[in-house]
Order: sequence, then structure tokens, then C-alpha cells
Amino acid sequence: MSAPDHPGLHAPHIGALPAGPLGTIADVSGVTVGHCTLARGELQTGVTVIRAHRGDPFIDKVPAGASVINGFGKSIGLVQLDELGTLETPIALTNTFGVAAIAQARIRAAIRANPQIGREWSTVNPLVFECNDGYLNDIQALAVTEQHFHHAHDSASTHVASGSVGAGRGMSCFDLKGGIGNASRVVGVAGRDYTVGALVLANFGRLPMLTIDGIPLGRVLAERAATSAAAATESTSTKPEQGSIIMIVATDAPLDARQLKRLSLRAAAGLARTGSVYGHGSGDIALAFSTAYTVPHGADFITLPPLLADERLDPLFRACADSVEQAIIDALWSAVSVTGRDGHRRLSLHDCAPDLAQLLRPSA
Amino acid sequence: MSAPDHPGLHAPHIGALPAGPLGTIADVSGVTVGHCTLARGELQTGVTVIRAHRGDPFIDKVPAGASVINGFGKSIGLVQLDELGTLETPIALTNTFGVAAIAQARIRAAIRANPQIGREWSTVNPLVFECNDGYLNDIQALAVTEQHFHHAHDSASTHVASGSVGAGRGMSCFDLKGGIGNASRVVGVAGRDYTVGALVLANFGRLPMLTIDGIPLGRVLAERAATSAAAATESTSTKPEQGSIIMIVATDAPLDARQLKRLSLRAAAGLARTGSVYGHGSGDIALAFSTAYTVPHGADFITLPPLLADERLDPLFRACADSVEQAIIDALWSAVSVTGRDGHRRLSLHDCAPDLAQLLRPSA
Amino acid sequence: MSAPDHPGLHAPHIGALPAGPLGTIADVSGVTVGHCTLARGELQTGVTVIRAHRGDPFIDKVPAGASVINGFGKSIGLVQLDELGTLETPIALTNTFGVAAIAQARIRAAIRANPQIGREWSTVNPLVFECNDGYLNDIQALAVTEQHFHHAHDSASTHVASGSVGAGRGMSCFDLKGGIGNASRVVGVAGRDYTVGALVLANFGRLPMLTIDGIPLGRVLAERAATSAAAATESTSTKPEQGSIIMIVATDAPLDARQLKRLSLRAAAGLARTGSVYGHGSGDIALAFSTAYTVPHGADFITLPPLLADERLDPLFRACADSVEQAIIDALWSAVSVTGRDGHRRLSLHDCAPDLAQLLRPSA
Amino acid sequence: MSAPDHPGLHAPHIGALPAGPLGTIADVSGVTVGHCTLARGELQTGVTVIRAHRGDPFIDKVPAGASVINGFGKSIGLVQLDELGTLETPIALTNTFGVAAIAQARIRAAIRANPQIGREWSTVNPLVFECNDGYLNDIQALAVTEQHFHHAHDSASTHVASGSVGAGRGMSCFDLKGGIGNASRVVGVAGRDYTVGALVLANFGRLPMLTIDGIPLGRVLAERAATSAAAATESTSTKPEQGSIIMIVATDAPLDARQLKRLSLRAAAGLARTGSVYGHGSGDIALAFSTAYTVPHGADFITLPPLLADERLDPLFRACADSVEQAIIDALWSAVSVTGRDGHRRLSLHDCAPDLAQLLRPSA
Repeated sequence: MSAPDHPGLHAPHIGALPAGPLGTIADVSGVTVGHCTLARGELQTGVTVIRAHRGDPFIDKVPAGASVINGFGKSIGLVQLDELGTLETPIALTNTFGVAAIAQARIRAAIRANPQIGREWSTVNPLVFECNDGYLNDIQALAVTEQHFHHAHDSASTHVASGSVGAGRGMSCFDLKGGIGNASRVVGVAGRDYTVGALVLANFGRLPMLTIDGIPLGRVLAERAATSAAAATESTSTKPEQGSIIMIVATDAPLDARQLKRLSLRAAAGLARTGSVYGHGSGDIALAFSTAYTVPHGADFITLPPLLADERLDPLFRACADSVEQAIIDALWSAVSVTGRDGHRRLSLHDCAPDLAQLLRPSA
Repeated sequence: MSAPDHPGLHAPHIGALPAGPLGTIADVSGVTVGHCTLARGELQTGVTVIRAHRGDPFIDKVPAGASVINGFGKSIGLVQLDELGTLETPIALTNTFGVAAIAQARIRAAIRANPQIGREWSTVNPLVFECNDGYLNDIQALAVTEQHFHHAHDSASTHVASGSVGAGRGMSCFDLKGGIGNASRVVGVAGRDYTVGALVLANFGRLPMLTIDGIPLGRVLAERAATSAAAATESTSTKPEQGSIIMIVATDAPLDARQLKRLSLRAAAGLARTGSVYGHGSGDIALAFSTAYTVPHGADFITLPPLLADERLDPLFRACADSVEQAIIDALWSAVSVTGRDGHRRLSLHDCAPDLAQLLRPSA
Repeated sequence: MSAPDHPGLHAPHIGALPAGPLGTIADVSGVTVGHCTLARGELQTGVTVIRAHRGDPFIDKVPAGASVINGFGKSIGLVQLDELGTLETPIALTNTFGVAAIAQARIRAAIRANPQIGREWSTVNPLVFECNDGYLNDIQALAVTEQHFHHAHDSASTHVASGSVGAGRGMSCFDLKGGIGNASRVVGVAGRDYTVGALVLANFGRLPMLTIDGIPLGRVLAERAATSAAAATESTSTKPEQGSIIMIVATDAPLDARQLKRLSLRAAAGLARTGSVYGHGSGDIALAFSTAYTVPHGADFITLPPLLADERLDPLFRACADSVEQAIIDALWSAVSVTGRDGHRRLSLHDCAPDLAQLLRPSA
Repeated sequence: MSAPDHPGLHAPHIGALPAGPLGTIADVSGVTVGHCTLARGELQTGVTVIRAHRGDPFIDKVPAGASVINGFGKSIGLVQLDELGTLETPIALTNTFGVAAIAQARIRAAIRANPQIGREWSTVNPLVFECNDGYLNDIQALAVTEQHFHHAHDSASTHVASGSVGAGRGMSCFDLKGGIGNASRVVGVAGRDYTVGALVLANFGRLPMLTIDGIPLGRVLAERAATSAAAATESTSTKPEQGSIIMIVATDAPLDARQLKRLSLRAAAGLARTGSVYGHGSGDIALAFSTAYTVPHGADFITLPPLLADERLDPLFRACADSVEQAIIDALWSAVSVTGRDGHRRLSLHDCAPDLAQLLRPSA
């Protein structure tokens, strides 16, 4: 998580829990991520795919739960997830108007893998989340297609890039360049170590709200911008946010769907600590899944490992909040400045605040 | 609601409340419906569009609330509907794998009408419901396209067909031919008359469960089928249902989104009276909207008419349950037999039970 | 379930599934029920306690899920049940204004059993459900006290009475005498037999709505009453219902809290088939619990038996709906006429319809 | 909000919005608060009552919505509030085992005011929230009685005390003395000024989590305590929290129940910024009500003022989050140290950190 063009500058570490070795969602064993990035002129968008395991997720479903913190969003698949508590496709992230194309891609891929789907078998439930990247990206071009999904899916690995990549390419966050962020935490519970990893698609917030590790950085940057004629831009506007954030949380702790729903809500705490109040126009959704077991399609009985008791969940709740806060900071930290539609430009945090190191250590 | 080929035979009237003049959802003033039907060999599917008014629904949003009775479904748009309590597109119904195409069509149409969408304005939330017609229709062909949506949308009128039309073309209900059904009821509340109308996409149930106006017709038909060698088909199978039902309820009563959500749940009562227990594999979703006022896009304040008090809602609750039960019967009553994919055939209720009149009047 | 004063007359059997040997919720192994009945002049009320097992429910918690079908009710304990998915006290039923006294009794009893509660341990979550018996009972007298809870609790056995007993003493249903009803069903799932049992506290509905096994009995009785000057009473009033129904469902099938919540919702189907549309003023709440395992207090890990897959739940869903419908009929069938506050009187179904056998076999 | 024994030391002002003149929930016109405090030896507890207006809340109900952030709690009244969107009693706060007594008091009071309740009229829905003060208070003594409710209710005024008073008497927060906190904010929306006020009952958190205005004060205090033999107490324990927080938000903005539910959720953002991750054992519940209009009992139609559009809610969302964060700080700031059950003692923030002014201005 040192910045691409600032190799010596590391983001502050949030909280007291240690990160995993990669510092990404892929620290949760089995989880892989792939990006497909479109970055050509007016088109600044993409697709990101998160896979819970390398197998067929329709055959070996993954326990999951979600929290809709603010439902101004067009993500799909949550109705069935809420009823059944399982994922049966990879998780895809893209721009708002790309959801339908990705859903179509998911359906075609599932049919190819299991030709009984929609006939002898039930239909498949694609899970696609979205944010609106319309400030930088010509979202009305509907540029995301099925092949972009497949490219992202097939390139999934444990090397997970953050920043202006994949679905994050055109996203804005606190009027700066946002995008994909990652983080992880390791916690001891009941004598064992468990990992919680987070991947966010960060596209929310107005600059004055930005808070990093408790420091009101956005207030400083907004005041600075306000006194600079050249900077009197969109950034200082008072219009409401139209962004969103998708927060995907993975863990290897043995939890059921109800517990994962509880875990997912703790993403709201990490989000709030960066300055969000879950704005009206922001689709703020969190999903948590566990890799500790799968739910086999077509079985009569589901055999579960011993589940962690609810009374033991507090360390995981903390790891979730810290990972999400850290992942949002990572998105800002890792992003590069991008120019897109109609010459709109979002500065990266580093480009906006070349003196970032000083600003984050006010008393030093 | 007399059967197409049985002009003298009327479906039993459910309950004590009178129907409106049309006996369809279009009895609610302003509501129109259009169908686009695909009926060629292996393709037996379509699109149905319900419009709450003739204007632009993004500009003049419609108050609405929904109940997910059983969430085994892939409908889209409910996350935002639940948060904001408004419809901002027409309601579209289609097959499970047609949802993405229709959503794409809705997005393109909304952008054409309001080019600010996704840029200065927020994005649009398409509302598309689905059932799986894969028994009669080659659902894997993904035959539904944008033009089918537009055809259905542009042909919307107050002349609303029921049966094997539109999205109902390939649907099955109680192992018989299902599809689109309509009904309405008029109730007096607080000195005024209000209308409740229902349109269902009926695609659920196994034959032995079918109950019409309290009469266990399905049990009789299933026993008859069991003793007939020729009829030893799919109908008598014990495999679980993979169907669904979408229940759209309209009213001209002045209700807010919370009250409309309450109203929508009463669809579950009408559904249960036909024999459903909300089977595991059945996506059972109800949505209710009011035409009594609209919520203008971009306004600072929303002016509402005086709303009916919650304590006065019982007649509307009854009208909702009765309309939905009646509409399900109407779907069975109006449908014609259809042969589709791989020679699969669903008999209409009338073809399955030529002595229907006798069966429904057991004591006569 | 033959009527007390009509030993030869059995209630119709709902649906195709067989009942268990007792035909009560106690057919689910381990479940016991106790009643305490107050029947003195103006006081016609009581307490009913359902125990999932004979042990300490705080130490060995029971997996459970609930559905609020219509939330006009004052039951307590559901907030924590919904979060944690467990029962930790017996389930108590009483009148609306007795809830607080019973909750207090539960707290004192739990502290006596576990003096750490509220100190080293967390507090205990009493679960108390209620209906308003104010028509027959002087509910304002707040007559229910802690000792009534203990009497009901300590007398719990597998001999479960129905009718005008316990919390059901003062309840009305369809303008007739309501109260406690029981039923059970046995289903084969995945090669094994499971039992579903229901106990209801039935206190809802207006006479014209009453439907028994699909037969609109209430309409007949209401018309008869309307033509009888002597019967021109409360029964024919058009004022909205102020009743409620509590539906407790037990099963020995191995289900988790999420699945039990799904199961509990199917009570709404059974309820609807008796004529209810979940009236505005009726607090309609269902709770389902499983006796297949317990969740031990203070454990690090919870070991579950193999759980039934969701795709195998349809027979249990049907058993739930049928048991609840049957239990409501049982409440009417078992109740005796009661006179209470201000001389108010509710006739039993048998007293209201001496020709009940004929009415229920219209074609015979 | 200057500390009682530190008249010159003011709590930091959270965020950029101005407070109202009183800095309490009573800045929302019409809202009054009363406390009844029990502080005798082992009994350190009490009751706090919040009244939305001076009239009869059963006759003139108040629009309201609630969010259960973590449902480990025994509060009552939320089932009906969620269904109907109105308050019909004052809001009462007390200890966990006092809920039943207060509910009983509320019922008796409502019957006295309206003798039709439970007879011709429906029953009344008392709303009582709780936290567990069992560390300082002998909660098992069940010391709270009806007269304490009445004392609190009848003394309600716009002079609202914070700290170790009323229901807050025995509460702990971040291992320090918690209790009642207040704050308010004024925002301009659509050309008018609206006030948001918050009152919290703060009883959650472990010391190392405490964050004030972004400064990790708790980490500093916990490290200090760890190095002090004398302070090696409860405070440094690692056992999970068993606390809770109740957050009551009032506003004069014209919002309906759905919007108030949205508003209430923003309390979770303010709460998170103080260090909470909504711990497993913490019942974290927020309720928001509006004083802009009332819903008259028994009316046929409800006339509403023009409602603020959802798109205009962001300033109110911010005011809610800031008020709740400020109110939690106020609870810590205003509390005095208390010794209670078994000699247990909670230090106030000021007594624990005599150098608080320095700690909160690290760079000065």
C-alpha cells in the first residue's frame, strides 16, 4: 500500500490489528480477483470480479450475507441472497449501466457450465454491484460488454491491484480519484487465527468530509482549494453526492449466513470513520462471505463445520470495520489521476496534496 | 373473464366486493398495460409492461411499496424501491433470462427521454420482474430483446388481455397453462369509492394444490390424471416447483409508500387461498402503487393529498387479497393450451377439465 | 380434536399430510405446554407457556426465527430473536396488558436459575406474545401476575388442552369464542420423517370471513344471524377487528435460524386460508423453533447436526401451513362459550351452529 | 456543555454545523425531557422520559422511524412502530430489568387518560428502551417502579440535564462513567432552517476504542492505565462489552415515517466515529421522530404538510450523525464519577484524565 509514484510513503495503518501478508482481500485463502480496465478517451470504466474459490460457484455455493446501508443503488442479486444466504456466481463490480451486460454474461457462463440451468435445474442468480462513474466515464455509451466480464473473471489471481483499475477506473471518491481499495486484518478468536479481507469500490463523498485515521484532511484540502482561483471547480461544489460504495468482505472464519449479515453491517462503521454519513444519493452496500465451507447444489443435507459462537464475533466485527476503513484509504492512496469524459479530471490524493505526509502528521 | 372458447362460462367471483367495469388492473384510472408475445416453436415467451400513468415516470415518480414473500427470484429494482418508496420507470415483466435485456432497454429509453441521467442527474432505477418459463420456452436462447420491451410499452392501453400473452406466454401454473391474470375490486372507505386492481404473472404451483374459490379442484384433477395412463406426465410429478408469481397491485387510494408496502403484503393472502404455501423455489413478490399523486423529480418539497388513515385500510386489504386470488384464477381461465420447447405441452384449465362447470359447483 | 360436548363430531382434516399421534404441538419430541386459566366473572384470561425442552433454555438456547406478518402488536423479545436466532426463555402467551408482568416473572426466574445474569453474564431476553382479550376480559384490571406464569410453566406437559384455556380463555375469533388451538403434521423429507406442530392463540377475524377447509361457513352464519332479531349483536358489526393471532410452530427437523424464519412465514398461508387478510388492527406474528439441537451458552463454537438443504423444505412449508390452518380450526372447535366483562358473551362455534356437521358437508 | 466541575473546559464541537441555543434535544421546539434518578448505595439507576409534545401522544401520534443497528436488546414497542410509523406514548429509557415496570406504568397512564383503551379502542403501544447498568447498579433488585416513571414524566421540561442522571445514572461508556448526552444542530434546507436534536443513553464501548473528534484518546488512557498498578482494573479487561446505546433523534423537519427511518440510521455513523463497531453484546438502537405534524387518532384522513424531498435530506443526515457523536461526547463530558454495587466505581472522563485539555489538542 505504498503509493505507486511515492514509493516511500505508506498509508497510515488503521487500528491495532495486524494486516495479512498481502494486505488485500486475497489474504483470505482461496479468494482471487481479476480486473478488466477500459481507459480510452471518453471511456474510463471497467469490470472487477471476485471469486470465493476456484471451483464452480453454482455447484459449490458460498455462505454470504449482505447489508443495504443506503439503498440508492441498482445492484442485482440481493433478493435471493437475502432469502437463501448463498452466493452462486462470482461477485462482479462495474458501472451502473453495465450491470445488465454483466448479468447476461453471468447467465450465459452458468448455462455453459451447467446446461440444466433454467430447465431441470433452477435458474442462476447473478450478483452484480455497481457505482455510477458518469463524471469521468461516458456511462451512456454502455461500453461494458460480456467479454469484459470474462476477461476480468479469467484473469483472477491473488495479485490484486488497487486504484484506478477494473470497475474502479472511472470512480470518484471525496471529489478525488477513487476506485478499488484493498485491506486485510488477522484476528485471534477462541484460540485460532482468522483473516478478514475487504475489497471496496469507492465512489462516494464530498471533499470536505474526507477523514483519514481521524484527521480531517478533507477540510484542509477544501479550504486550500477555496482560496485557489484555479481550483474553483467541481470539487468545491455543494451539490449532493451521487456516488456509492460497494464493500465486499471475505473471511475464513466459520460463520453462517445470519452471522455474515451481522458481519457485513460492520462495514458501515469503517465507512463512517472516513467521513460518510451514508448520503441520500449514495448506494452503500456491504456483503460478507465465508470460505470456511460450501453449500453443495442438490444435496439433501448440508454439513457445516463447528460455527463460531455469536459471543465470539467482536474481534471479527472490529477486523471488518478496520479493513473497510483501510481499504477506502487504499483506494485513494493507490489511485492515479484520470482525465475522461468532456475533459473532466479527477486528481489523485497524492496529486491534490503533494504534502500529504505532512498533513497526516499534524503534530510532527 | 369468460373463457375465450367457452363464452358462457364465467369464473367464480371471489368474495363479496364488486369488480370494476373492466375487471382488470386498468380499472384504476390512468393505468395501462401492453404485451409483446413471442410464440414461434421453441420460443414461447414475451414481455408485459404496466404503466402507472401516461407521462414520464422518471419526472413524475409514483409512490410504491413491495413485499418479498419468498425471495427465490431475480427481479431487479427492489433495493432502491424499498429505500425511496417510488417507481421511476414502467413495471416490466418477462422471463428470468430476459431481465437484463429489458433493464438495458429501460436505461436507454430513460436516457433518450432525459439526457441528464447518469450525468447531472442520478441514474435511473429500472424495475423488472421475472418468472422462469423454461418448461415451455427455450429460455437459454435469450430471445427477449429491447425491441420487445418497446413494443409492449408503446402498445399499452386500457384494453388488457389475460392468459397466454406477453410475459405470460410460456408460464405454467399448477402444472396447467398459466400466464397473465387480471382482476379489480371497488370498495367504499370513509365515504368515498376506491378501486384496487391486480395483474399477476402466474407461474407457480403443482396441480394437487390448486384451489378455486375454496374448492380443491386440483386434487380432483390430479386423481383423475393418476388413473389415466395417457396423462401420466409431468403433471403428476412430485418434484418441487420452480415457478414464481409476480403480483402487481394498483390503487387510486391516497396511500404513502409505507402503507403501500402494507397493502402489497395482502397479496400473500390471496395467493395462499389458491393453494400456494410460497414454495422454496418460487419467487413470490408483490408490489403495490398508488395513482393518487406523483412525486416530482427535483422538487424541494412533496405535496401530498390527505392520506387514508391506517385504521381505514381494512377494505383495501380485502380488495387486494380478493383481486389477487381472482387474478390468478383469471390467468388459468383465460390461458389457452400451448406447446413449446421439446414438444412440452401445457393444457389450459378448460382443456384439462372440460367439465369445469360441474366440478366448481359440486353440490349443484 | 373432537368437540368436548360433541364427542362424535371431528373437525375436518386439512390437507393430505397425516397428523402426529397427539395432534398437538407436543408431537414434536420434547415440547411441553402448560396453561393457567383465570375464569372468575369479569376476569376471563390466562397464561400459556410453551417449553422447547425440559432443561434451562438460557443455558441451552433453541434455534428460532419469526415473521411479523402484521405488526400491530405489543409482543416482546423479537428484536434480539431476530438478531441472534435463538430462544433463551420459554415462550409465554397472555393478554396485551399482561406482557409486562410475565416479562418480569421471566426475568426473576432466570436470575434465580442463573445469578450471574445481568452481572457477569448478559441479561436475559424474555419472549412474551399477546392478544387483546378485552371484549370478554376486564383487561384494564391487569389481573395476570407472576404466579400465573409460574403455574403455567410448572404444569407444562405433553397433555395439551385446546380451547377456552390459558391465554385463550378470553379470546375471540371470527366473532365466536376463540382461544388455544393445536395441530401437527408428519412429513417425509430426504428419507426421514419429521414432525411439525403448531399452537395458536386465535383472537382475530369477523364472522363473515370464516372459512373452514374452503367452505365459507362464516358467510352462512352471518346471514343467519342477520335475519335473527335476537342475534343482532356485536357479531354483525362492521367495526374493524382489534384481534390478533400468535402462531407458534415447532419442528424436530434440523434447521437453522434463517430457515426457521422462512418456515415461520408459511404460517401466513394457513392463516389466510381461514379467511384472514391480516387486518390492520390484528397483530399477526409467527415463530418457528427447532428441537433438533441447542446452542449452548458460553461456548466458543456451535456444533450443528447436518441441516436440511433449503431445496428440501417444501414438505415442511406445507406442514406448517396445514398445521396452522388446522390449529385455528381446533381453537374454534375446542372452545366453549364464555360470558365475561359487562355480560359480554361469545358463543362457541358449536353453540352458534348446532348443525355444524351439515354445514360443513354442503353436498352431502 | 462545559463540564460541571471544569467550568472553563468545553467539549470539542463536532463538524461544521452550528448547534442550537440549548445544545440539547429540547432545541427541537416542543420537545421536553424529564429525569428520575435513583442514587442510594447499591441502587444507581433511573428513568428518563422524552416527550415529543405537551399533549396526549395517544390522541396526537407522532411520526417516527427506527433502526436496529445491533439487536442485542430488550427494548419494547418497536414491532408496532415499524408497522405504523408512529409513536403513541412518550419515549422512556431505563435499565434492562426496569422495562416491564415502565411499560406497566405507561399502560396504566394511558388507560387513565383514555378509558376506552383496550375496550372500544385498540390497546396502547408503550415504547421503552433500555441499557444494562448492572456494573454499578444492583439491577437484580428491580428497583425501578411506576412512580419513577411518573416522576420523570411529570418533571419534563426544556431544561435537560446530561450525565449521571435519570436512566444514565448507572451507565458506563468506554469503561468510564457514561449516561445521558445531548446535542443539537441547525441546518438550512431548501431555504429554511431545521433543527436536529439528539439525546443518547450511552452505555457501550471498551476504553481503548474511545475516539473524540478523531483523536484516539482511549488508546492513550488505556496505555496509561496499563502502566499504573493501581489502575489495573476492570477497565483494561478484554472481556466483551455488554453495554448498549439508545439514540433518540428529534427534528422539526417535515418528514414521514419512511424518511425518519432513513434519518435514524445515520445515528450509526455518529456512533462509529466515537469508536464503536456495534459490538455483539451491545443493543444499538436509533429512533427518529418529527414534530412537524401529528397523526390524529381516529381520523379518516391524515393531512400532512409538504414533506421535504428525499433528495434534500443530506444536511439532515449530517446533522443527525454530528448530533449523535456530539451527544455521546456530552454524556462522557457531563458525567460525574459514581460508586455503586459491590463498591464498583466508574471514573468520569474528567477524573480519569485530569489533563484532558492537553490530550485533546495534541499539536498545541
